[in-house]
Amino acid sequence: MTVRIGVIGTGMIGEEHSRRISQQLTGGEITAVTDVNQEQAQTMVDRLSLDAKVYDNGLELIQAEHVDAVMVTSWGPTHEEYVLAAIQAGKYVFCEKPLATTAQGCRNIIDAEIEAGKRRVQVGFMRRYDSGYQLMKEAIEANRLGEPLMIHAAHRNPTVPERYVTPMAIHDTLIHELDTFRWLLNDDYATAQVIFPRKTRHAHGKVEDPQIILLETTQGVRIDVEVFVNCQYGYDIQCDVVGEEGIAHLPEPQSLTLRQAGQRSNEILQDWKKRFGEAFDVELQAFIDGAASDTVGGPSSWDGYAAAIASDACVKAQESGQIEKIEMPERPAFYA
Amino acid sequence: MTVRIGVIGTGMIGEEHSRRISQQLTGGEITAVTDVNQEQAQTMVDRLSLDAKVYDNGLELIQAEHVDAVMVTSWGPTHEEYVLAAIQAGKYVFCEKPLATTAQGCRNIIDAEIEAGKRRVQVGFMRRYDSGYQLMKEAIEANRLGEPLMIHAAHRNPTVPERYVTPMAIHDTLIHELDTFRWLLNDDYATAQVIFPRKTRHAHGKVEDPQIILLETTQGVRIDVEVFVNCQYGYDIQCDVVGEEGIAHLPEPQSLTLRQAGQRSNEILQDWKKRFGEAFDVELQAFIDGAASDTVGGPSSWDGYAAAIASDACVKAQESGQIEKIEMPERPAFYA
Amino acid sequence: MTVRIGVIGTGMIGEEHSRRISQQLTGGEITAVTDVNQEQAQTMVDRLSLDAKVYDNGLELIQAEHVDAVMVTSWGPTHEEYVLAAIQAGKYVFCEKPLATTAQGCRNIIDAEIEAGKRRVQVGFMRRYDSGYQLMKEAIEANRLGEPLMIHAAHRNPTVPERYVTPMAIHDTLIHELDTFRWLLNDDYATAQVIFPRKTRHAHGKVEDPQIILLETTQGVRIDVEVFVNCQYGYDIQCDVVGEEGIAHLPEPQSLTLRQAGQRSNEILQDWKKRFGEAFDVELQAFIDGAASDTVGGPSSWDGYAAAIASDACVKAQESGQIEKIEMPERPAFYA
Amino acid sequence: MTVRIGVIGTGMIGEEHSRRISQQLTGGEITAVTDVNQEQAQTMVDRLSLDAKVYDNGLELIQAEHVDAVMVTSWGPTHEEYVLAAIQAGKYVFCEKPLATTAQGCRNIIDAEIEAGKRRVQVGFMRRYDSGYQLMKEAIEANRLGEPLMIHAAHRNPTVPERYVTPMAIHDTLIHELDTFRWLLNDDYATAQVIFPRKTRHAHGKVEDPQIILLETTQGVRIDVEVFVNCQYGYDIQCDVVGEEGIAHLPEPQSLTLRQAGQRSNEILQDWKKRFGEAFDVELQAFIDGAASDTVGGPSSWDGYAAAIASDACVKAQESGQIEKIEMPERPAFYA
Ligand SMILES: [Mg+2]
Ligand SMILES: [Mg+2]
Ligand SMILES: [Mg+2]
Ligand SMILES: [Mg+2]
Repeated sequence: MTVRIGVIGTGMIGEEHSRRISQQLTGGEITAVTDVNQEQAQTMVDRLSLDAKVYDNGLELIQAEHVDAVMVTSWGPTHEEYVLAAIQAGKYVFCEKPLATTAQGCRNIIDAEIEAGKRRVQVGFMRRYDSGYQLMKEAIEANRLGEPLMIHAAHRNPTVPERYVTPMAIHDTLIHELDTFRWLLNDDYATAQVIFPRKTRHAHGKVEDPQIILLETTQGVRIDVEVFVNCQYGYDIQCDVVGEEGIAHLPEPQSLTLRQAGQRSNEILQDWKKRFGEAFDVELQAFIDGAASDTVGGPSSWDGYAAAIASDACVKAQESGQIEKIEMPERPAFYA
Repeated sequence: MTVRIGVIGTGMIGEEHSRRISQQLTGGEITAVTDVNQEQAQTMVDRLSLDAKVYDNGLELIQAEHVDAVMVTSWGPTHEEYVLAAIQAGKYVFCEKPLATTAQGCRNIIDAEIEAGKRRVQVGFMRRYDSGYQLMKEAIEANRLGEPLMIHAAHRNPTVPERYVTPMAIHDTLIHELDTFRWLLNDDYATAQVIFPRKTRHAHGKVEDPQIILLETTQGVRIDVEVFVNCQYGYDIQCDVVGEEGIAHLPEPQSLTLRQAGQRSNEILQDWKKRFGEAFDVELQAFIDGAASDTVGGPSSWDGYAAAIASDACVKAQESGQIEKIEMPERPAFYA
Repeated sequence: MTVRIGVIGTGMIGEEHSRRISQQLTGGEITAVTDVNQEQAQTMVDRLSLDAKVYDNGLELIQAEHVDAVMVTSWGPTHEEYVLAAIQAGKYVFCEKPLATTAQGCRNIIDAEIEAGKRRVQVGFMRRYDSGYQLMKEAIEANRLGEPLMIHAAHRNPTVPERYVTPMAIHDTLIHELDTFRWLLNDDYATAQVIFPRKTRHAHGKVEDPQIILLETTQGVRIDVEVFVNCQYGYDIQCDVVGEEGIAHLPEPQSLTLRQAGQRSNEILQDWKKRFGEAFDVELQAFIDGAASDTVGGPSSWDGYAAAIASDACVKAQESGQIEKIEMPERPAFYA
Repeated sequence: MTVRIGVIGTGMIGEEHSRRISQQLTGGEITAVTDVNQEQAQTMVDRLSLDAKVYDNGLELIQAEHVDAVMVTSWGPTHEEYVLAAIQAGKYVFCEKPLATTAQGCRNIIDAEIEAGKRRVQVGFMRRYDSGYQLMKEAIEANRLGEPLMIHAAHRNPTVPERYVTPMAIHDTLIHELDTFRWLLNDDYATAQVIFPRKTRHAHGKVEDPQIILLETTQGVRIDVEVFVNCQYGYDIQCDVVGEEGIAHLPEPQSLTLRQAGQRSNEILQDWKKRFGEAFDVELQAFIDGAASDTVGGPSSWDGYAAAIASDACVKAQESGQIEKIEMPERPAFYA
């Protein structure tokens, strides 16, 4: 059985995912697309040679008979509405982050999903599908490090455009770490604090850069994340988990070691899409397979909600300069 | 269009490839299978839940209407016959190495393919599809090393079974390097010499282990390959290309760096199937895509023939202790 | 001219340094020793075959005619008195950390040194003499990283004894980082904060372990140091300096890379004396050479004072859980 | 007791060693110097502020009363005469490589030393004193690799001057490996073969570059050494010892890891004097200590002789293109 997928939002990430599904992965096909910009939607259909109908809007697409599952890659503020509609239509939905732009929006989705009685949502936290993070997760679960006590991490981009402002360091950047560490540690956050080091001369006027975010989990694990989005030298994701008996370092992406011109060197990636390209493949294949077998897994609505709550606290900590509490409601048995 | 594939030979590698095609890759399906052991063929069909007919023999399978392309993963001595039959049937054929067990057998295939007037054969030299080797190839082609002058390489297995005898170090092990270096260097071999170091105490009675194979190309590039199939510590593929201005090292497979118990360590793989798992994916996807678009690429019959000629010379060098010439006939324009 | 050195304190570090001076370094000899335990002093003289007189006490030793320079490696609380006496006697003095156990004690030494009108004191902050840190210092000064913005560091010991209590994480452990980062950055500290992660099960009752110390410099550089003194796996010093255009990582100590038993591994040191063995050589040779040429350099009394002030603030931050200010008086021109 | 050393030959290496002895090491002083160019000798005395007499010639210097030990760093063809004279004068002598320019010259020294009845000669094979090679030696002796079976090595220089001709790849370059591997393996050579890869465009007309030297030991260990003296990118010494159960890689020299401008990089040395700077220190300190304690160790006349015999065979193999036998006479008990 081929899973017929409707795509809402044909921007860069929507097209990337559509290309994956139609050309690289197995078991899925794009049968419907829509975008606020219908021309762009049609252009993508043409460019990828899809046999797909272009819809007027997302809600119609979700209802369409020849759509088994929905992929929401539209503008963030629209996510909530489409995910809710998909749940009500009884269709699996892959939603790029954020699940909703507010914690309340996420909560609405959770309530709807619980009421509908079946998990329908997979949130696009692709790092869980990265082979390097999976090795870390395995090492932790196999107790090779002892109990985790600390995480030291960094999320660096070469540059960001003018429109990237201070809170986006949380919403757009840290959001990945916020999900990943909950998953790695099987834990929730208790507090957040944000520190602003001396600002780099390469940052635009409206963004504090770099930032250091300090997180505490309910188990007392302490996490520091450097977010540095104008680091110039490359796209670089670092993560060390320090446990009672040992430390695991996230593997560097594969690269050639060259000896040349007085240097032994390895190239550092510049583009996040390359860094997590395989993770996107695995993530979307998992969604297709889940839809095909009628049981979707991976990051749930609850995980999207938790990330939203943590994000909100981090932004508050950016503003207050204080240690902010993060209060997660109890996890419903539905998401156990 | 889905490429309907018939599989001849359902042993370990045949089943691995069938699993890939049916569960992981896109655009192909297994519609026919056969094996000298028909029960085994049926078992595979069941295990992979294939919708495939089990044939009495390979020749029938090749003729079958619902077979667009053929995968030959049977016992080596049968390859030639099946590949020839596929060519005559006008069907694309993926043939695991060796293309044929003799250079003459390969030549027969070449003659048939040229006569038929169209490239039909892709030989299973998967290393060309390995991302690490591809980075090396790119670095060489981009002239980042200057002209290549030497290759230092190693092919190590933890252990081999009793049936692995001295010439298999060439036919089963070095064969991969023989193809890979022709491709990396865009060159052919001129001479071969084999050196037997002190034998490891871990080798069985019928195998000289380790061996060092020295190759010279027509351009004068010198290659040394350590083949060490009872190295105990792991499956380890090393390759350094030394050029006029720099050196490239084949990347190590991804692994977690751990600090633990007085060691900073990375796991070394034990299993060659894991080492080249992604390369197998890319290789078979390329075959499916090639069959679908009616133009197959990758390692050709000519490459299989060249590997066979070089293998024969290396085995002769094992026996003679001398430097043996490798004489490649001129490459037909057909394979340019 | 050979510098005749008197040693006050013949414990472990005193004997190590005396062995260096008498057997490894050039230009110095041990001519006088003393210890509260005179037998121990005599034992060291015998063990190292020194031609040295054993004195009743440090003050007598300092006055002795055949003592050109003094090395203070006695119990911390005695340092101040001996250093002051050496200054008054017009003799160069190498003082192991701490310069004094209180900031006021350090200040007394500074006042005396300024009054005496000549730099006499070299404080035993040996990391400045470590070849790895020197490479970092050079890279920073050569502006290869751009302006430094952050330092991420770790100071890990396999285990500590029962007598190691929470404030010792500052006084005995972090003290090295406190000096090193002032020197690396050419900057002073402005604030300190201490975070206590979940405690490792391997720590004794009276020590919080690990700890994370957050420092801010007057230039806004942000530093996080993990102090983890029961990390089990080894003695491990990590330091990354993050600048506006790049990052430098402190080199790992030299070790053999082994491929063996499924692992590619490097040994991690267990013993801090090995980690900084060469730095001790360079440090003490610098002191001898300085004394011989009548102009001592390296970490000064002012640096000892600055480390004491920062230490006090860190201990206060351990106790308060708050961000504590670090107020350095203006640096006298004498120490410019 | 200070060892009073007379230096014969004040060229680059003679001055480097003299600087070490007079400024860095302990227990020795330069009291006499000579050179065919007496002005150069005087210049060195002045530059290093030595309290040393300049002699007319080496033989006078060797006889001088105030010379306890001799350092021969003159032009190679003069070594034999000076070493013989030192032996006859009953003085310890450190002789830079080569011990003599012919195997017979080395033999003459051996005969004289045996007749004199006491080991007097330390040959300047400094790699045995390199901390990296010592780690390898320890790993081998501790049986961490099992029995050694192969060595893969490389000796690369960025460039060489016009006067460097083909046999110098053996006499000046490989000579270090020839000694080092005998010492690492505790074994002697049985055969040599030389292979000339395609020549680099960066080599001058009179030198084949690169070269690959294949050695076989009496125990059957097989060694391949790439000598590449115009490799452009740096001075780079590589050595892998492959044993029955594992492999040891010579550590890379210490360097900073930088992340910068799209690269993760480490500097590669350009200058061999930096690569083995610490080894020179340890080597010369060992000589001084040996002279002081009346028992010199390290590389002996026998080792110099063995290196000469192996060198001769390698040069013969360069010329013949054949596998050449290396016949070592039996080692006298005197050198056991
Ligand atoms: Mg995503
Ligand atoms: Mg294959
Ligand atoms: Mg110290
Ligand atoms: Mg030497």
